[in-house]
Amino acid sequence: MNVQPGTVYLVGGGPGAADLITVRGLKVLRQADVVLYDALIDPSLPAEAPIAAKRIDVGKRSGQASPTQAHINRLLVRHAREGLVVVRLKGGDPFVFGRGGEELEACRRHGIPVEVIPGVSAAFAAPAAAGIPVTHRKMVRSLAVVTASTVGEDGAAGLNYAALAGMDAVIVMMGRSKLQAVVVGMLHAGRAADTPVACIEKATTAKERVICGTLGTIVGEAERWELRSPMVTIIGESVRMAHLWPRIESLRSDAGLHGQGILTKRGHVPSKTAP
Amino acid sequence: MNVQPGTVYLVGGGPGAADLITVRGLKVLRQADVVLYDALIDPSLPAEAPIAAKRIDVGKRSGQASPTQAHINRLLVRHAREGLVVVRLKGGDPFVFGRGGEELEACRRHGIPVEVIPGVSAAFAAPAAAGIPVTHRKMVRSLAVVTASTVGEDGAAGLNYAALAGMDAVIVMMGRSKLQAVVVGMLHAGRAADTPVACIEKATTAKERVICGTLGTIVGEAERWELRSPMVTIIGESVRMAHLWPRIESLRSDAGLHGQGILTKRGHVPSKTAP
Repeated sequence: MNVQPGTVYLVGGGPGAADLITVRGLKVLRQADVVLYDALIDPSLPAEAPIAAKRIDVGKRSGQASPTQAHINRLLVRHAREGLVVVRLKGGDPFVFGRGGEELEACRRHGIPVEVIPGVSAAFAAPAAAGIPVTHRKMVRSLAVVTASTVGEDGAAGLNYAALAGMDAVIVMMGRSKLQAVVVGMLHAGRAADTPVACIEKATTAKERVICGTLGTIVGEAERWELRSPMVTIIGESVRMAHLWPRIESLRSDAGLHGQGILTKRGHVPSKTAP
Repeated sequence: MNVQPGTVYLVGGGPGAADLITVRGLKVLRQADVVLYDALIDPSLPAEAPIAAKRIDVGKRSGQASPTQAHINRLLVRHAREGLVVVRLKGGDPFVFGRGGEELEACRRHGIPVEVIPGVSAAFAAPAAAGIPVTHRKMVRSLAVVTASTVGEDGAAGLNYAALAGMDAVIVMMGRSKLQAVVVGMLHAGRAADTPVACIEKATTAKERVICGTLGTIVGEAERWELRSPMVTIIGESVRMAHLWPRIESLRSDAGLHGQGILTKRGHVPSKTAP
């Protein structure tokens, strides 16, 4: 694909592993004059841009001073106006909880051409990495994707749990700090405490970790294993298909084991005997 | 990535355009001994497998005799047992309304190792191709993805419209023949008739076509332009960001024009004056 000078490319970098970017995304990246990349992007991806390209880390990291969205928008417009090929390399897909829509609007306001190159979203790839089909003809025919990161912040309305509880599966993006609120919300809305849940941390990277449990147990499991963001949670029956799930079944009758442990790239670590 | 003999790779071929497969997916495909591919896969993708590879078209086409899922499962298991590198190349993502879960189960039952390589789902890429962010911080914080293809078939329960109406945006996969049922369901569940809707046919391919309208007008528009599957529909406020939408606004005061026309890869075709 031939790139156009003065154009902004909103490129999905994929869910984590560098080789889960699309072929088109990589081609465009290799022709970039400027790359603005997120915190969750694998460092080998900005390195794919030409040696002379300008690389700008615009990652938002919690607890640190980081560029505002308005600042990122200005950088996109300014570099495009200079006639450069501007690649905005974003984690996952640019339009799935990535504020790519706001970047598109900013460019349009200034008459800058924008092309969107979709990416694999962690919403789907994180469950897949754990062996969980997000849909299944017999179990999951409807699916909700929400972000919990803004629940209760900025006066943002909470999630509509009544609606969510009516979906076969719910995927929650970036929800580590809100996991408990989401679990309580789903239980209050009528979902059973034994509904299977999986949390996938740093999906598709070497540091990936997966835990499985139920609405009744997952908060305790996430605390025990000190799971942190980036994390994707999936709630629904197809979690029973997780690579880790058979171990839960086999441990269920063993009173000495507390929980089913965690699955990492190095293998399965069972939970210790409860104190 | 090095492939393992006797393993089944469930590879997401992406939403349509061949270069929207992932880098990893293409690498695995280039090492395949056998490729089983779907009807919606671009023909240039199976061609990427080695010359000596066996290529099997297992596409399901409506109105034609086509392989059953059980037959596909048997083919996967049989070729893997022969020690071959088996690539199951599926449209979109293997685990998003693609029956990849059933293929995973079949392989597990026979002790065949399976690796899932996620792909870009048309659920997200089709709206993106139309310029529509599936989420937007100010408009869309919750998102449902459903398939309408089985509504009312095989005794399948209909969609839970009360739950869907509580989500900010709803994406309907493969829903051409059920478009009217979905629209009526959403209206009955309380969504306003002026809620924006877009239908995207053959997204990301050269034959892509996009129409925009509202819950009140979209069925008529889809009939007027004879839209067909594969088609993705998105219902929600962020449809106002579609490339096509500004034309709707500018045409709204022009009584002679009926609808806003269609956007194809060759450009915008406005609707003719109503008869």
